[in-house]
Amino acid sequence: MYVILVYDVGEKRVGKMLKLCRNYLNWIQNSFFEGDISEVKLKELTILAEKIMKTEEDSLIIFSSRTEKFLDKQIIGKERSSTDNFL
Amino acid sequence: MYVILVYDVGEKRVGKMLKLCRNYLNWIQNSFFEGDISEVKLKELTILAEKIMKTEEDSLIIFSSRTEKFLDKQIIGKERSSTDNFL
Repeated sequence: MYVILVYDVGEKRVGKMLKLCRNYLNWIQNSFFEGDISEVKLKELTILAEKIMKTEEDSLIIFSSRTEKFLDKQIIGKERSSTDNFL
Repeated sequence: MYVILVYDVGEKRVGKMLKLCRNYLNWIQNSFFEGDISEVKLKELTILAEKIMKTEEDSLIIFSSRTEKFLDKQIIGKERSSTDNFL
């Protein structure tokens, strides 16, 4: 399945969340990721994310679609490469 | 059409982009928006966004789908209301 993921977590947890999400998806910008992922892997990712998050403060939103073909993607301006350094 | 929008702009331009996008879409978190919008309104939004952006530095990504039904949305943790104060 194709997913778009975005998180909003406290500063102390940003590094861990970034690292976790980059293991499963392609990083787009800031706290924003996309990619193809199996349902099992997505479940794994959400379980690990919940362990990092303080669920009363942080949030994680996942949009998922069975295939990418229903989504058009338009980029305006600079496209940041997923190989950029980002701390 | 249903869109998911995310921007990454220089700090000086964040306020203007936030205000612009909130006029057209529902704010989800940080620089992340979603909503139903007509093709004409979306075009209008992108033209106005381009005027705010420095396209060599900033970026704007828009995912669009003809309908919301192809997308499942899962929220983990705190769901931030669109009426929250956010500067």
